[in-house]
Amino acid sequence: MEKRARFSVLYRLTGDEATALNKAKDICLEQSVEFPGDLLPEGFIREHIVGRIESFGPATASHETAPAYHANISFDVETASGELTQLLNVIFGNISIKPGITVESIDLPDSLLRQFQGPRFGREGLREWLGVPQRPLLFTALKPMGLSSEELAKMAYQCALGGIDIIKDDHGLTNQVFAPFEERVSRCAEAVERANRETGQQCVYVANVTAPMDQLISRARYAKAAGAKGLMVAPALVGLDAMRLLAEDDEIALPIFSHPAFQGSYVTSPGNGIAHPALFGQITRLAGADAVIYPNFGGRFSFSRAECKAIARGTEMPMGAIKPIFPCPGGGMSLEAIPDMLDVYGRDVIFLIGGGLFRHGPDLTENCRYFRQLVESTLVSEIA
Amino acid sequence: MEKRARFSVLYRLTGDEATALNKAKDICLEQSVEFPGDLLPEGFIREHIVGRIESFGPATASHETAPAYHANISFDVETASGELTQLLNVIFGNISIKPGITVESIDLPDSLLRQFQGPRFGREGLREWLGVPQRPLLFTALKPMGLSSEELAKMAYQCALGGIDIIKDDHGLTNQVFAPFEERVSRCAEAVERANRETGQQCVYVANVTAPMDQLISRARYAKAAGAKGLMVAPALVGLDAMRLLAEDDEIALPIFSHPAFQGSYVTSPGNGIAHPALFGQITRLAGADAVIYPNFGGRFSFSRAECKAIARGTEMPMGAIKPIFPCPGGGMSLEAIPDMLDVYGRDVIFLIGGGLFRHGPDLTENCRYFRQLVESTLVSEIA
Repeated sequence: MEKRARFSVLYRLTGDEATALNKAKDICLEQSVEFPGDLLPEGFIREHIVGRIESFGPATASHETAPAYHANISFDVETASGELTQLLNVIFGNISIKPGITVESIDLPDSLLRQFQGPRFGREGLREWLGVPQRPLLFTALKPMGLSSEELAKMAYQCALGGIDIIKDDHGLTNQVFAPFEERVSRCAEAVERANRETGQQCVYVANVTAPMDQLISRARYAKAAGAKGLMVAPALVGLDAMRLLAEDDEIALPIFSHPAFQGSYVTSPGNGIAHPALFGQITRLAGADAVIYPNFGGRFSFSRAECKAIARGTEMPMGAIKPIFPCPGGGMSLEAIPDMLDVYGRDVIFLIGGGLFRHGPDLTENCRYFRQLVESTLVSEIA
Repeated sequence: MEKRARFSVLYRLTGDEATALNKAKDICLEQSVEFPGDLLPEGFIREHIVGRIESFGPATASHETAPAYHANISFDVETASGELTQLLNVIFGNISIKPGITVESIDLPDSLLRQFQGPRFGREGLREWLGVPQRPLLFTALKPMGLSSEELAKMAYQCALGGIDIIKDDHGLTNQVFAPFEERVSRCAEAVERANRETGQQCVYVANVTAPMDQLISRARYAKAAGAKGLMVAPALVGLDAMRLLAEDDEIALPIFSHPAFQGSYVTSPGNGIAHPALFGQITRLAGADAVIYPNFGGRFSFSRAECKAIARGTEMPMGAIKPIFPCPGGGMSLEAIPDMLDVYGRDVIFLIGGGLFRHGPDLTENCRYFRQLVESTLVSEIA
């Protein structure tokens, strides 16, 4: 048999052994030829194009009652056609509609990985960009929607003065009349620069460029010209491949922050979808993000501590030349959670605190200073 | 209070009354300001920007054991910023990550609907385009992946000769070396035209243009120039808004077929996600598709008869000037299922049969003729 490169996907299949094995066999056909197996022509298509079960065995953890199996299934590299869209289609296209199938992880050979640039900055590059070589990074969001550009810019100034590293638009701020995109982005970028001149630090403003497809790149260019030093995009709203396009644009060349809006359905249903580290780690990296925002455990969302740890692992697991990226746990985080989070994530983390910053006291700049001191002092006490 | 236009979303919330009501209140904040309610400034933001519960009551059907409630929640039209991406963000952005929430339906005022063109053709326009005023339409797919462009074109010719109305690329055919996009599309379009000259019918070839973002529009233009008379795209792979952009392109101006690959996670988990008629009906129409492909009941996927009926309703429910579109049930359909499907869907349906066409006999053209006769004779016997 001719030797051809293959990539593989580890699926978790619910059901007893016979049911799960049937699911695995079905995936081999459904995700490649989508054709009845017995009607396939002999030769090349059967031998190479149809998926192949490389291993199959029980997956049930001891605390689970329903049985489940792991199937590692490989596909010919050419089925993905060097396209992120088609790679995702082979991994989880039609079977996203079949219950009881979860993508646990993907394993791509170098020949396929080389077809993707991945994150431009990655962890190391982002630390350099921000001038923060070691400690966890501090991240906040400008909100609520309904404030004017001037009010948002004032808030950005106050946060930058307080020592925050990264200040982003709330993900709901796009181009509303209250704070139109160009006006908001210019004012916020300018406000952060003004604070930087006073503090001597290099806080960055990250503009939300989640937008209609025909405006995504132009908004990103505008943001860069206006002084934004990073871009946020929600890949489930614009398409994962649009994030890749943004990340690969050599003229824009800014760090990309991935936001999970509209993406939750892939992970909220146990037994269906894409496992947290595969979605927020591996796939997000392939799609070019330098940092991935997701809801932390203990906040107002439902991710568990184990799931968050798994995401952090997914952001750094080896993927050829595709760089490790920063996990950005957020979503209803409080300042009190910081020591525990440091314990879980270590130093290579970006703490995203939005509303929780306002709760600490009436002076936003003071609250930011407290946030930064809390992170720094916890680190010192860790070392001591 | 100033009068401002609002749109509303009907959510289904699992849990007892207090839990569900808390979820509804949470949605009002999460999907608009994403900010602690007690810290919001008085005035405009509280009065208009925060979501508003318009109604709340039990939703549990008699056969269900777990309680659930319906909340109808309204949002200021300006929060959506006239953008499909941001409208989806308000409807289901962050709460896609919170379990026990389903989007049942959306209700948009004319002022918002007018910001979207919707399907260019719709049901009536597609019937005119195809020259088939009344009967159900016949749809098949070229596969399996791994065949050469020449082999796929031969198959297209045979199907067109047999009286199929619409012949599409399988959704996994993009730009693989076995059948590169330009070569495949040219040959298949030419083959269908050749058959049309022989039959005097007007079968159309639909090219799959699901592609990397920077190639989507150029592939669509190529396909049109090569003679394709329709385009297929998987909106969950390229982004729903990319489908809208394709549909609104006045130079391309071809019917758009929406494919559900990678979209299943929104509907596979009971209690989470987006209800079938909202996703495959309302949202798909807003995003510009003229026909929506989804797995039929009784095939190899898991949608129920009731869910399929609901999708069909969603494709035609009133939405201002946004046209009704065709449901295209497919996915492991057999020819034997046709009479029952006619019973469920009536005449305004596109029957998509792929592998099932090959099973009937060795001569593909004969199989297609049988498919067409089956549909026509069932209609005649219905009338008799």
